[in-house]
Amino acid sequence: MIKVLLIGNGNVASHLATAFSKTNEIGLTQMSSRQLDSLPIADVSLIAVSDDAVEAVANQTTENQGVIAHTSGSVNLNAIKAKRNGVFYPLQSFTKGKEINYSKVPFCLEATYTSDLILLEKLVKLIQAKSYSISSLQREKLHLAAVFANNFTNHMYTLAHDICAKEQIPFEILHPLILETAKKIESLSPEASQTGPAIRKDQKTIEKHLSQLSNAQQELYLLITKSIQSH
Amino acid sequence: MIKVLLIGNGNVASHLATAFSKTNEIGLTQMSSRQLDSLPIADVSLIAVSDDAVEAVANQTTENQGVIAHTSGSVNLNAIKAKRNGVFYPLQSFTKGKEINYSKVPFCLEATYTSDLILLEKLVKLIQAKSYSISSLQREKLHLAAVFANNFTNHMYTLAHDICAKEQIPFEILHPLILETAKKIESLSPEASQTGPAIRKDQKTIEKHLSQLSNAQQELYLLITKSIQSH
Repeated sequence: MIKVLLIGNGNVASHLATAFSKTNEIGLTQMSSRQLDSLPIADVSLIAVSDDAVEAVANQTTENQGVIAHTSGSVNLNAIKAKRNGVFYPLQSFTKGKEINYSKVPFCLEATYTSDLILLEKLVKLIQAKSYSISSLQREKLHLAAVFANNFTNHMYTLAHDICAKEQIPFEILHPLILETAKKIESLSPEASQTGPAIRKDQKTIEKHLSQLSNAQQELYLLITKSIQSH
Repeated sequence: MIKVLLIGNGNVASHLATAFSKTNEIGLTQMSSRQLDSLPIADVSLIAVSDDAVEAVANQTTENQGVIAHTSGSVNLNAIKAKRNGVFYPLQSFTKGKEINYSKVPFCLEATYTSDLILLEKLVKLIQAKSYSISSLQREKLHLAAVFANNFTNHMYTLAHDICAKEQIPFEILHPLILETAKKIESLSPEASQTGPAIRKDQKTIEKHLSQLSNAQQELYLLITKSIQSH
């Protein structure tokens, strides 16, 4: 049995606690970061607090708390000064109250010692999720990639929504196509999946589209079209 | 029973034929656009041919072929000169050989006569799909919206893929988050779903990101960030 100390009571901590309690092979103690006076002995301590608080909370642990790993996407491994430090970062947006299908959650793991990495991998396996060994530098780039893949993508949805709203077109008509586009790249690279007037160099359609857009929309349409064509 | 004449043998025609053959309430005749010398009597004729060929094929039909509707997203209703003209446009990307869950396919319908629109709606209902009454002008805007929601979105995936590839990060780590982003807007508007450094006006992270990008990537990052912030 792996003794896990889980520090924090936010979204990530609650979701992890739920997952850990489902298996008998994990012995879980969950604590708020405000009650850290006497910490129990543990094999792994997971610090699931806000990015800014990781370092201070980690400083309150001792060797008795085993591997000290944080669950943050953007905090360096070095923020944890303990010798046996680690990262246990689930790359998924956790919504309060919404249950997670862990088999789909990728965990980005990192640890100074290989034996600790293996221990963290074991934890991930026990909740039927998938682990990846990702360095702090890679995690930083992953965060940048996610800005494009998620934040910017969502803004494209917003712009599409604006166009629909202006003509009283129910936006839900586009939902199936949006989902299909997102699913397609699971079996085909996004570069190979590219369709539309830009990649076809269909100048007639591009000009027709531009004539229907506001100045700000035109600027975006042109730059993204250029980026698709020069890729 | 509705007698349907389906003209064409491309992707859309094959998928529609498969769907129509599953119900006894549709009597289907499918023909290639090259064998149009003697057309059967029909209640509805669906012209599922390339955009450029719609008009010419429609010209070969008579009143005996009932409502004459094309299945194209970008062809105007007026391209069909028959009095009883219509549009029967499934807004979904049909992949050869991949079966379609029709309950998720939105059909954009249009017809000069209300009675014909009702007939087209009946057809959609018989294959358990969903219909929307969409004018030619709205269809044009929908096509433009789809460029943002699908083509441009896919390019954001490509840019994320580039960043991952450069650091040997497996792109599949981002799949669950990408799918979550696409699903989220089914229950929340994309504007309300927006997250990330741009909407938070987290200038420190934005600058850190910019410093890690190529010139072309920077230009896109800045313009989309500006667009998110000014929305």
